[in-house]
Amino acid sequence: MPTISQRGKQMPSSPIRKLVPFAEAAKKKGVKVYHLNIGQPDIETPKPILDAVRHSDFKILEYSHSAGNESYRRKLTEYYKRFDIDVTHNQIIVTTGGSEAILFAFMACLDPGDEIIVPEPFYANYNGFAVEAEVKIKTITANISTGFALPAMEDFEKAITSRTRAILICNPNNPTGYLYSEAEMEVLKQLCLKHNLYLFSDEAYREFCYTGKHFSAMNLEGLDNNVIIMDTISKRYSACGGRIGAFVTKNQEVLDATMKFAQARLSPPSFAQIAGEAAVDLPADYFDGIKAEYQSRRDLLVKMLNDIPGVFCPNPGGAFYAMAQLPIDDSDKFCQWILEQFTHDGQTVMMAPATGFYATPGLGKNEVRLAYVLNLEDIRHAMVCLAEALKVYPGRTEIK
Amino acid sequence: MPTISQRGKQMPSSPIRKLVPFAEAAKKKGVKVYHLNIGQPDIETPKPILDAVRHSDFKILEYSHSAGNESYRRKLTEYYKRFDIDVTHNQIIVTTGGSEAILFAFMACLDPGDEIIVPEPFYANYNGFAVEAEVKIKTITANISTGFALPAMEDFEKAITSRTRAILICNPNNPTGYLYSEAEMEVLKQLCLKHNLYLFSDEAYREFCYTGKHFSAMNLEGLDNNVIIMDTISKRYSACGGRIGAFVTKNQEVLDATMKFAQARLSPPSFAQIAGEAAVDLPADYFDGIKAEYQSRRDLLVKMLNDIPGVFCPNPGGAFYAMAQLPIDDSDKFCQWILEQFTHDGQTVMMAPATGFYATPGLGKNEVRLAYVLNLEDIRHAMVCLAEALKVYPGRTEIK
Repeated sequence: MPTISQRGKQMPSSPIRKLVPFAEAAKKKGVKVYHLNIGQPDIETPKPILDAVRHSDFKILEYSHSAGNESYRRKLTEYYKRFDIDVTHNQIIVTTGGSEAILFAFMACLDPGDEIIVPEPFYANYNGFAVEAEVKIKTITANISTGFALPAMEDFEKAITSRTRAILICNPNNPTGYLYSEAEMEVLKQLCLKHNLYLFSDEAYREFCYTGKHFSAMNLEGLDNNVIIMDTISKRYSACGGRIGAFVTKNQEVLDATMKFAQARLSPPSFAQIAGEAAVDLPADYFDGIKAEYQSRRDLLVKMLNDIPGVFCPNPGGAFYAMAQLPIDDSDKFCQWILEQFTHDGQTVMMAPATGFYATPGLGKNEVRLAYVLNLEDIRHAMVCLAEALKVYPGRTEIK
Repeated sequence: MPTISQRGKQMPSSPIRKLVPFAEAAKKKGVKVYHLNIGQPDIETPKPILDAVRHSDFKILEYSHSAGNESYRRKLTEYYKRFDIDVTHNQIIVTTGGSEAILFAFMACLDPGDEIIVPEPFYANYNGFAVEAEVKIKTITANISTGFALPAMEDFEKAITSRTRAILICNPNNPTGYLYSEAEMEVLKQLCLKHNLYLFSDEAYREFCYTGKHFSAMNLEGLDNNVIIMDTISKRYSACGGRIGAFVTKNQEVLDATMKFAQARLSPPSFAQIAGEAAVDLPADYFDGIKAEYQSRRDLLVKMLNDIPGVFCPNPGGAFYAMAQLPIDDSDKFCQWILEQFTHDGQTVMMAPATGFYATPGLGKNEVRLAYVLNLEDIRHAMVCLAEALKVYPGRTEIK
C-alpha cells in the first residue's frame, strides 16, 4: 500500500474541529451548546445578493475568466475606491475564497524554505498553506497585556534572516480583533522597504472596525510593489459559502505570475461572483446596522468577561473575535471539559483554545478565542455559563 | 522591489490562452471564429439543476462541511453505484472543481521531487499542479498511429525509478479522446501493485463514451488502496463555472490526510453543491440525448478531417476531443496564422496546438486538438475552413 506524503503528515489538523465530536456528544445528550468557536456569522446574507443569483437567467454555467468576470472586477474597483484604494480591474484576481488568495501569494512570491514573519496569535490556517507551499512561518509574539498591539520593530528585526521574504498580517485581526493603527502600519512599511519584503495583508474584516478607522496596507504610500491584499466576501456579507475572494496588488510581475496559478485552476466559482458583484451595490448604510449589532455584542461580551473574577479580555477594535485570559491550567482541556462535563441550566459553551493560534509551544494555554457571532441574548447566556463553569473547573489556577 | 518566486517563474502559461489575443483581433476585424480550442461545452446546463440553485431558500450562505455537504456526498454514492463503484459518503471529498482534486492528490500523496508517470499527450494543467506541489511529471509517449492507446508495459517499466510514486491517467482522455480498455486498465493495475504506486484516474468525461464502455479505475479489484479518482461535474452537466468536483478513494490514510488540506481552505462552493446534488436526480435518459449529439459531432468531425488530403485523425472513443495530424511545419505557428492571416467566407477556426500537451520537446508539432463543442452546422463550416486553410498555408509540409 502506497504511503501518504511527509507533507500530508505535517499538514496540521484544524485546532477547532477536534472539539466537534465533544460538542456533538453534548447535543445528543440534549445540552444546548452556544457556538462561540467559529467565525460563521449568524447575520443573514443580504437578500439582494442572494436574489441576484436566484434571478440570474444564463443558460450555461460557463467558466468565467481565470481572473474572474471582468464586470465583477470593474465593480470591485468602485468598492475599493470607498477606502481610498485606487486599483484597476487588472490589478484584481478573483479567487476561490480568501484562502486561495493566501495560497496564491505564498506560491507566486515564496519558494520552499523561504520565511514569512507573522505576529502570533494568528489565523491557524496560515500554517496549512505554509505546509502546501513548503514555506516557514516565523512568529513574533503579540501580548494580551497590550491588547495584542503590533510587536516592537526590534522584535521583527531580530526575526528577519536572509530567507525572510514577507510579513503577513491580518487587519483587523483574527483571532485577536486587534485593529492596527496607521502608525503601526508605517512601522511595517519601513521594515518592508528596508529589508525588501512583501507585505501580505489579510483584510477580510475591513468593515468591522468599532474603535478607530481601518488603514489598509494599500493606503501606505510608496509600498505599491510590496503590498498584496488578501480579501474575501465571506465575513463582509455573511457569504462564507460563496467562496469568493480577491488577490489585489499593483506589482505587475506578481500579477503575471499569479495569473498562471489562476489559469491552472481555470476559474473561480461563477454563481457567487454574481453575488459579489451585486454586493458592491448594496445601500451605503448596509454596514451601519451590521456594525452596530456587532459592536453591542462586543461591548456585552467584553464587559461580561471582565466581570468574571480572574478573567481579562482586552477590548478588540475590530473583526468579531475576542481573546480572553482565563484562570485555567490548559485551554484545550478546559474547552473539552466544558463541553463534556459541564452544563448550567442544560447549557454549555464551545470556544476555541488559543493554543491553536500560537506557534510558540506553551503560549495560549490560559487563553481562549470567542467569536461573537451570536445575538445578545445568547451571548448573555453563554457568559453566565462560562462564569459558572470557571467556578467549578478542576483545573482552575487561582484562589476562588 | 521584491522578486517573484522561482516557482512563479517555472509555472507554465496556459498553452491555449496565448492564442486568445489573436482570436480577439480577428473578431474585431469582423471575422467569425469557430472555437474548437477549449472544452467549454455549448450544451445547455440542465434546467433542473440551475433551478435547484435558483429556488433555494436558505437565509445565510454558510460554509459547508469541508468535505462538502453530507447530503450531496450521500447522493453521490448513488451516482457512483450506477457505474458499479461502491463507495461510502465518507470516501468522497467534494472539491472546488476537478482541479482541486488533482492538487489534493499531489499534495497528500507526493513529496517534492517525487515522480508521476503520465502518458503524453496529456492535460496541460497537470504541469501547473506539479509545479505547485514541486513534483515531477515523467511522460511516456502514446502514438497517434495507434489512436493514442496506452503505451506498452515496458515503456512504463523503463520510466519507473525509485522516486516514482504514481501513474496518472485521464480516461476517457483529454486531449486525445482515447478510451482505455479493461485490458489496459489491468496493465496499469499490475504496474501499480508491482511497484507500489498510486493510480490517479481523472474521470471527468466518464459519461462521454461512444465506442466501448467506460471501465473506471475504481472497478479494478484489489487496487482499493492505490486508486484515487479525480472527478468533476463540469463537463458532465455543462457546469464548468460551478467549480464542483470530487476526490474519491478507499484509502483511509489518504482520506485523512486530504481532509486536512480540505479543512485549510474551509469548504467547497455552496451554491454549486446544490446544483451537483440535483444533477444526480436527472432522468436516467438525460445523457442519451447528449451522447447522441456528441457522437454525431465526433463522426462528422473525424470524417471531414480524414477527407482533407494529408490529414489523419484517429476515431476517439470518448470525451469530446480529437487529435488530428496535419500537413504542417509547426502547430503553434499554424494555429496563430489561421487566426491572424486566414479567412474563408469571413470565417476562421481556433484550435489548440498539440505541442502544449506534450512534455517531450518537438512532439505535437504537426498535431492539433479539436474540441467538438459546437453544433454540427458550425463543425461543418469549421472543417471547410480548415481544409481551405491547409491548401494555402505557407508552412505546409506535403505536396498538395
